[in-house]
Amino acid sequence: MTEVGEPKFDLAQLAHVEIFTPKVEETLWFFKELLGLEETERNGESVYLRAYEDFYHHSLKVTWGQKPGLGHVAWRATSPKALDRVAEALERGGQGQGWTDGDRGHGRAYRFTTPDGHVMEVLWDVDYYLAPEAKKTRLLNRPQKRPLRGVPVRRIDHVNLLASDVTPNKEFMVDRLGFRLREHIILNNGVEAGSWLSVSPLVHEIAFMRDGQGAQGRLHHICYWYGYPQHLADIADVFNECGITIEAGPGKHGISQAAFMYVLEPGGNRVELFGDAGYLIFDPAWKPITWREKDLDKGIIWHGGALPAEFFMYGTPPVSADEAKQAEATAARV
Amino acid sequence: MTEVGEPKFDLAQLAHVEIFTPKVEETLWFFKELLGLEETERNGESVYLRAYEDFYHHSLKVTWGQKPGLGHVAWRATSPKALDRVAEALERGGQGQGWTDGDRGHGRAYRFTTPDGHVMEVLWDVDYYLAPEAKKTRLLNRPQKRPLRGVPVRRIDHVNLLASDVTPNKEFMVDRLGFRLREHIILNNGVEAGSWLSVSPLVHEIAFMRDGQGAQGRLHHICYWYGYPQHLADIADVFNECGITIEAGPGKHGISQAAFMYVLEPGGNRVELFGDAGYLIFDPAWKPITWREKDLDKGIIWHGGALPAEFFMYGTPPVSADEAKQAEATAARV
Amino acid sequence: MTEVGEPKFDLAQLAHVEIFTPKVEETLWFFKELLGLEETERNGESVYLRAYEDFYHHSLKVTWGQKPGLGHVAWRATSPKALDRVAEALERGGQGQGWTDGDRGHGRAYRFTTPDGHVMEVLWDVDYYLAPEAKKTRLLNRPQKRPLRGVPVRRIDHVNLLASDVTPNKEFMVDRLGFRLREHIILNNGVEAGSWLSVSPLVHEIAFMRDGQGAQGRLHHICYWYGYPQHLADIADVFNECGITIEAGPGKHGISQAAFMYVLEPGGNRVELFGDAGYLIFDPAWKPITWREKDLDKGIIWHGGALPAEFFMYGTPPVSADEAKQAEATAARV
Amino acid sequence: MTEVGEPKFDLAQLAHVEIFTPKVEETLWFFKELLGLEETERNGESVYLRAYEDFYHHSLKVTWGQKPGLGHVAWRATSPKALDRVAEALERGGQGQGWTDGDRGHGRAYRFTTPDGHVMEVLWDVDYYLAPEAKKTRLLNRPQKRPLRGVPVRRIDHVNLLASDVTPNKEFMVDRLGFRLREHIILNNGVEAGSWLSVSPLVHEIAFMRDGQGAQGRLHHICYWYGYPQHLADIADVFNECGITIEAGPGKHGISQAAFMYVLEPGGNRVELFGDAGYLIFDPAWKPITWREKDLDKGIIWHGGALPAEFFMYGTPPVSADEAKQAEATAARV
Repeated sequence: MTEVGEPKFDLAQLAHVEIFTPKVEETLWFFKELLGLEETERNGESVYLRAYEDFYHHSLKVTWGQKPGLGHVAWRATSPKALDRVAEALERGGQGQGWTDGDRGHGRAYRFTTPDGHVMEVLWDVDYYLAPEAKKTRLLNRPQKRPLRGVPVRRIDHVNLLASDVTPNKEFMVDRLGFRLREHIILNNGVEAGSWLSVSPLVHEIAFMRDGQGAQGRLHHICYWYGYPQHLADIADVFNECGITIEAGPGKHGISQAAFMYVLEPGGNRVELFGDAGYLIFDPAWKPITWREKDLDKGIIWHGGALPAEFFMYGTPPVSADEAKQAEATAARV
Repeated sequence: MTEVGEPKFDLAQLAHVEIFTPKVEETLWFFKELLGLEETERNGESVYLRAYEDFYHHSLKVTWGQKPGLGHVAWRATSPKALDRVAEALERGGQGQGWTDGDRGHGRAYRFTTPDGHVMEVLWDVDYYLAPEAKKTRLLNRPQKRPLRGVPVRRIDHVNLLASDVTPNKEFMVDRLGFRLREHIILNNGVEAGSWLSVSPLVHEIAFMRDGQGAQGRLHHICYWYGYPQHLADIADVFNECGITIEAGPGKHGISQAAFMYVLEPGGNRVELFGDAGYLIFDPAWKPITWREKDLDKGIIWHGGALPAEFFMYGTPPVSADEAKQAEATAARV
Repeated sequence: MTEVGEPKFDLAQLAHVEIFTPKVEETLWFFKELLGLEETERNGESVYLRAYEDFYHHSLKVTWGQKPGLGHVAWRATSPKALDRVAEALERGGQGQGWTDGDRGHGRAYRFTTPDGHVMEVLWDVDYYLAPEAKKTRLLNRPQKRPLRGVPVRRIDHVNLLASDVTPNKEFMVDRLGFRLREHIILNNGVEAGSWLSVSPLVHEIAFMRDGQGAQGRLHHICYWYGYPQHLADIADVFNECGITIEAGPGKHGISQAAFMYVLEPGGNRVELFGDAGYLIFDPAWKPITWREKDLDKGIIWHGGALPAEFFMYGTPPVSADEAKQAEATAARV
Repeated sequence: MTEVGEPKFDLAQLAHVEIFTPKVEETLWFFKELLGLEETERNGESVYLRAYEDFYHHSLKVTWGQKPGLGHVAWRATSPKALDRVAEALERGGQGQGWTDGDRGHGRAYRFTTPDGHVMEVLWDVDYYLAPEAKKTRLLNRPQKRPLRGVPVRRIDHVNLLASDVTPNKEFMVDRLGFRLREHIILNNGVEAGSWLSVSPLVHEIAFMRDGQGAQGRLHHICYWYGYPQHLADIADVFNECGITIEAGPGKHGISQAAFMYVLEPGGNRVELFGDAGYLIFDPAWKPITWREKDLDKGIIWHGGALPAEFFMYGTPPVSADEAKQAEATAARV
């Protein structure tokens, strides 16, 4: 006999992510020419991008910054009232920073921070992308034609954040925002080394991993989705030939069962590409999968390319001289 | 400015489907030896099956019947209270048939019928599949090892029902059960020829298509999911060599963007296989895609194998002498 | 006990094909922007193109002509002496037209015609493509970087010619040039409807099919190769969105087991794309596969998209008013 | 102006490989239940196997031995006269061991050894596999139905041998047998660390790699071919769940561009699986690709799973206590 409380359904999806880059033009070249993102608009030091199957104004905001790193993560609520409920819960909890007037592509948003200090917002009103005549497709459920540039990704998938301590950030997302814990890693010493959480059947729209540098509020990676593993081989060709270092993959994770690849974009931020997103979770009483050290080899890599030590250390913004050098070298490679 | 009411989240997923077959052994051979389904249990004239990534006791119940056709469709609620809310709504609406004690693999269930007469139930308590030692896998988010038989499907995906009139059935699912309309076909004469609905980001867990014979309460097909288009080519090899007629595909639908193939199992029921499920809908204010006759060619087939005329006529149970002959011939082919 | 004579090894490969088009710019757009071919050189009314894994100066020569159709087919010999042997055999046989000085990208070539009148040549000296610095790749066995345009094909695969009578053309290729017959279709009335021949383990570098219009010397299609079936789905997306009509596929032929798709380029010539080339024949005593009418359904389509009636009738140049209209309409669609 | 001598065409293909195993039943389980090989016949301590698209009696002979390792490699000549020419050349060169009466599945064969001591034979007469009624397929160019067991491989691809010194073995294959050098690795000290050779457009039917233990006559691996990269992911699933350790991959080699995976079968021999065989070489004047140390990282792994140090050391039979332990452990895992 299963028994659970009433689940919350206040958040619907990851709406967009903002990243900082010290090399805006190189970062745009990476996302537009190689990954096929489309530019919607420019405003000040920011450029708004979307994948060709992203339905809204943008899923990625690229903003100039002295260092690479996370700007903010935006979630869309399931209704205007759900937005209010979430804002109130955050306000009550003391993590709220109040309402903003919105930005290009969306209306007012409630800003808050995770316990680790990552900036987030939740919003309801969004502008839909409307294709100009030349980009309209007869595939009516696709917002525009597939681009002819590079190996185009289809939609934003998730964001992965580093945290000095995973557990309070996980609990915050579950308690305040209604995320469900899907999978996590518990080390032999009891420390939670990583948590994968979602508000939809995807295994995660967000993950937290322990920051190997002990820093706070950093970005591990953002991820775009292809849907077909072949495209990881295709884009790997392109990266190899364009001087983009593939950090790991293509391979398949045990956690989430996703077909993955990791690269650093020229600004120094890590980007993951999903060949497929793995399995989906429809069970409303899902019991989180716990990966312990004895099974972690298969959890991290089910098959294919191993993750280098760097994977567990490097995040943005860089906090050590080594990391800064690495971020700089990345940018210089192009 | 988008504006919607508070959405309902009372149903979580398609739990299982029961089909009738006049040739139980041949039907089991098809599902177990070719599609790799696992048998959980037998009870009277029924056999309970699941795919290797289905988490519950069964996703398919195969029951002897004089004619092929639909037994029932079962939905899982998002909570015990959601189950009660749904049952009350159905009771009030007059479509309810009351509670059953449950079946192998699940607890009490509330029975009801669609306006067209398809039997359905909604339930909360389910038995999880627990793999015996020899079938346990180190991939902890997979309930058992991948079978070595045939080209094994991974999970149940959806059910597609024929209806004498699509619209009232669609409205029933939306109003009473909280389904969202994702895509539909409106003919030039205003008739709704098909509707695709879901309670999750999948484009559909259920579709209704207009019954070409004008009959009521029939099954068009059930669908299992692979996740990779290559497996459609693999199972097509197997079908061709085992005397199973491929009705259509592999190909890609415009509606849902799914990679599809259709076959008739030896009992005469149509089965769809999904190479991938297409795109996902996370937008909580999704505006249904309307396919009109001028775009329908691309909506039905985006690329690959065309659908034969039979596809739009044949359902189970057969209602014409021609259909009965076809169902019989199918069973005889093996 | 197998017993065969000494096989000939005088031809090595299909070197290039020349096609005529009344719409040079549109044809170039198709091959360069959608299929990712690279332009090597222009000369008078001809443009020389190659795929990114073609090693020579060109594999396709696009020449202006009032009507679409075949210019010529060029074969590379296995050695300078082999070239002389082939030229002498053709000379003796009466099909020879003598030596040309060569063309951009290759040295002297011996010209001849098939019994049906298709112009061909055989040559030895070729210019290798040498990538400029910016296109050099660290994948040393690839002549240049993978292009970022469209869904780029990798190499030329084969040519398929229509013939008023298949048999004498097949026999000519076998007797004079050393081709091996790999598969063929024999109708119930004894007529040979198609023949697939090769000088390498590929099932064919050339095929002859009976011309449904009874015409002579026409082109059915040229074919480029991807190697991965996913790319047929990708380019199908592109074709659908760019107004290029997909004639058939993606699907899988029984004959050759190749994953195929057919389209008409804007000039009116049919182009096939191979997702993979099927099986390879290493057996030096290969007995040709004979497809008879009873098995032809599976031979033509093993699975996936059926071939329309047009496929068996339309060739270039058009010989009927209907065909001319079709070729014209194709060009106009872009 | 290219200029070459007359090439030899006396060998057509890799016919079969014999391997020794101390655990015959476990080795058979691996090849039959997981890779879907079919057993043709047993004779004494040998079992004859073939993949479902292998046309002859067998492509693999599994023979009991105290240690794992190579039995022999068999090549098929292009004609009876070619067989005689090759035998005479070997006889003259002093590497010949004379004619055998043949074996199950083929007629008389001429035995010889490589400079490093690997036993080989060349033959002409072969028995073709003839499917019993139940295994006949309507795909007439396929010798039998696709098996329903495991993830079935399609045909033998190549053999990779360790040699104490690569160069003399390479030269022997080129000079005596007519192989062409396709790619090789030359270290900074001038040592040839590996050579890939073929008699067909495949990049290799045989490779020699320098034996890290300095031993002679050892086997590095045999390879079977799928044709589709997805099947590497499928069989990786199976291996992970059946206790077969994946040594490396799936990934893509630069050398040959093949999609690869390596495992040890329970007897201790390394087996490679090809998702696809990479590019084909049709150029009769092919200039070998030389990989030097500066490019070797991309040559060995273009993308995906890295090769462990073991890959460059372990061969069969084991020659060190460590290797023996590893071979034993492999057998014990099952």
